[in-house]
Amino acid sequence: MDREVLHQAQARMENLTKPPRSLGYLEAVAVRLAALQGRVKPELGRGAVVVAAADHGVVAEGVSAYPQEVTYQMVLNFLRGGAAINQLALAADCAVYVLDVGVMGELPDHPGLLKRKVRPGTANLARGPAMTREEAERALLAGREAARQAIAQGATLLAAGDMGIGNTTAAAALTAALLDLPPERVVGPGTGVGEAGLKRKREGVERALARLRPGMDPLEVAAEVGGLELLAIAGVYLEGYEAGLPLVLDGFPVTAGGLLAWRLKPEVREHFFAGHLSREPGHRLALEALGLRPLLDLDLALGEGTGAVLAMPLLRAAARILHMATFEEAGVSRGG
Amino acid sequence: MDREVLHQAQARMENLTKPPRSLGYLEAVAVRLAALQGRVKPELGRGAVVVAAADHGVVAEGVSAYPQEVTYQMVLNFLRGGAAINQLALAADCAVYVLDVGVMGELPDHPGLLKRKVRPGTANLARGPAMTREEAERALLAGREAARQAIAQGATLLAAGDMGIGNTTAAAALTAALLDLPPERVVGPGTGVGEAGLKRKREGVERALARLRPGMDPLEVAAEVGGLELLAIAGVYLEGYEAGLPLVLDGFPVTAGGLLAWRLKPEVREHFFAGHLSREPGHRLALEALGLRPLLDLDLALGEGTGAVLAMPLLRAAARILHMATFEEAGVSRGG
Repeated sequence: MDREVLHQAQARMENLTKPPRSLGYLEAVAVRLAALQGRVKPELGRGAVVVAAADHGVVAEGVSAYPQEVTYQMVLNFLRGGAAINQLALAADCAVYVLDVGVMGELPDHPGLLKRKVRPGTANLARGPAMTREEAERALLAGREAARQAIAQGATLLAAGDMGIGNTTAAAALTAALLDLPPERVVGPGTGVGEAGLKRKREGVERALARLRPGMDPLEVAAEVGGLELLAIAGVYLEGYEAGLPLVLDGFPVTAGGLLAWRLKPEVREHFFAGHLSREPGHRLALEALGLRPLLDLDLALGEGTGAVLAMPLLRAAARILHMATFEEAGVSRGG
Repeated sequence: MDREVLHQAQARMENLTKPPRSLGYLEAVAVRLAALQGRVKPELGRGAVVVAAADHGVVAEGVSAYPQEVTYQMVLNFLRGGAAINQLALAADCAVYVLDVGVMGELPDHPGLLKRKVRPGTANLARGPAMTREEAERALLAGREAARQAIAQGATLLAAGDMGIGNTTAAAALTAALLDLPPERVVGPGTGVGEAGLKRKREGVERALARLRPGMDPLEVAAEVGGLELLAIAGVYLEGYEAGLPLVLDGFPVTAGGLLAWRLKPEVREHFFAGHLSREPGHRLALEALGLRPLLDLDLALGEGTGAVLAMPLLRAAARILHMATFEEAGVSRGG
């Protein structure tokens, strides 16, 4: 982030032909985009979303409304273009990259799929460590690799998405652990589990958190609670940060991955934009911890990166603000 | 609006490969777009915004933070591409049409400007009728003509924008009159007038409302309080309604024009989408009266159609939802 350009963009914003602050939150977004790109008139082109997919042993506890095989089936749906993320990405000039970092079952080869399965799903986080620390590192590197590919192919704006039946349980455990929050504040209905499932979900998270010890580093914590795709998502954002890109967060699981990236590299936060506010209760707490205001609040709770991709045109529009004429350039009188 | 397609789209929405209601408010938007277009898989192409500009005699009361000549200067800025609406429209695949329906001063000829000046600004609404009923009708027809041009040139999605120093005073009077609200609930700071100006604004609106008599029709009311661009905006929406297009509302003045269109033709409401919620206090009340949920809430208060244009990519994205695969098409298991 270029502090000099940040100040120049702020100064320019005050002189543009509009009442002060009349573009609301988008003005701060525009200035930050300028600073990230190192130019007072930023421009965003094509976006990319890396959808990381993996399975979760914790589904054995009955924490999800959907059977585990849906992860595998939805990856096929992504590759065929039939999922929400495909259709929303079409409308947002965003490329979709699918990453298998731990799906149960062998997926077919496909040009849109990066196969980097670390293991076929995590172990059950309610009963023991979700994965080893070495596996956590490999999952994170897989996310980095997918992001590197997206960036090499022209992404100017990067998001992550998630697919993994059971992953709001892992996301709740990771969010609670990283932000030191009680499970009841971060466990929500996910894709729509009922009351009994919600209780099992909360208990599973409690058991996982009980295994954590003071002094564990963020990767050890993530290995304990999972999931593989949350590690990959952290990797996506760390790689995007190093490339200097604006990074868009999605809903609860993706933001949990974002929290992990932040714990590993605090500066990554300056690159984050919150695509939307999810219905999942823990998401608001995670965004508050990151100091981020969501661009959209439409009661979404789908994941896959959908809320991040929906916000991409808003980020592009915000960048255009700094291309407006100033009062002086346009010969417009100022207010008093 | 095609009721048969509405039901078909609703049924399809229930079968798409996502948890029920996980795309939140966008699902209802998608279904309504399908019904408006008469096809279960709607598609939105290029948008258009008609920015109607006019002056207001009420600025003599000291109700605005900006001098009157800014209306004229900003129209020139629109024609040169330097204003917020130009830059945001670029990012939203939206054409900008500028309509002079009552700007003080002679504007140059320009291919992007439709010159249909009804009169050089309204009379001061705090002291007497803003215009005659015949002038109100001509302003409305000018808006219809601009919309017809935009539609003939390929608009699939239509918004109106406003430019007119002093127009939040006229918009407050029109909103209060049409919704039977007390002035203090609809008078706000506009582009940033101070406390004394706000008091003058409220008093001006009170005096205008005191002249209204029971039984006046909506056009008579609008002629009494103005402004010319609010009439034109109503015309834009009425024309767009007749062409069957989805119509996007902007902030407070544009929504006041939308309220007028609704009073003249109640069915127009089925075509309305609320682009955003403005900071201006009366805007929320107007949207509530129309039964509309805003797509964006970013503390905007600029006008020109900016909040409507920012929401256009969201409407396009919502249309794509119905292009997703169903559970059956994709071979994905359902939740229980």
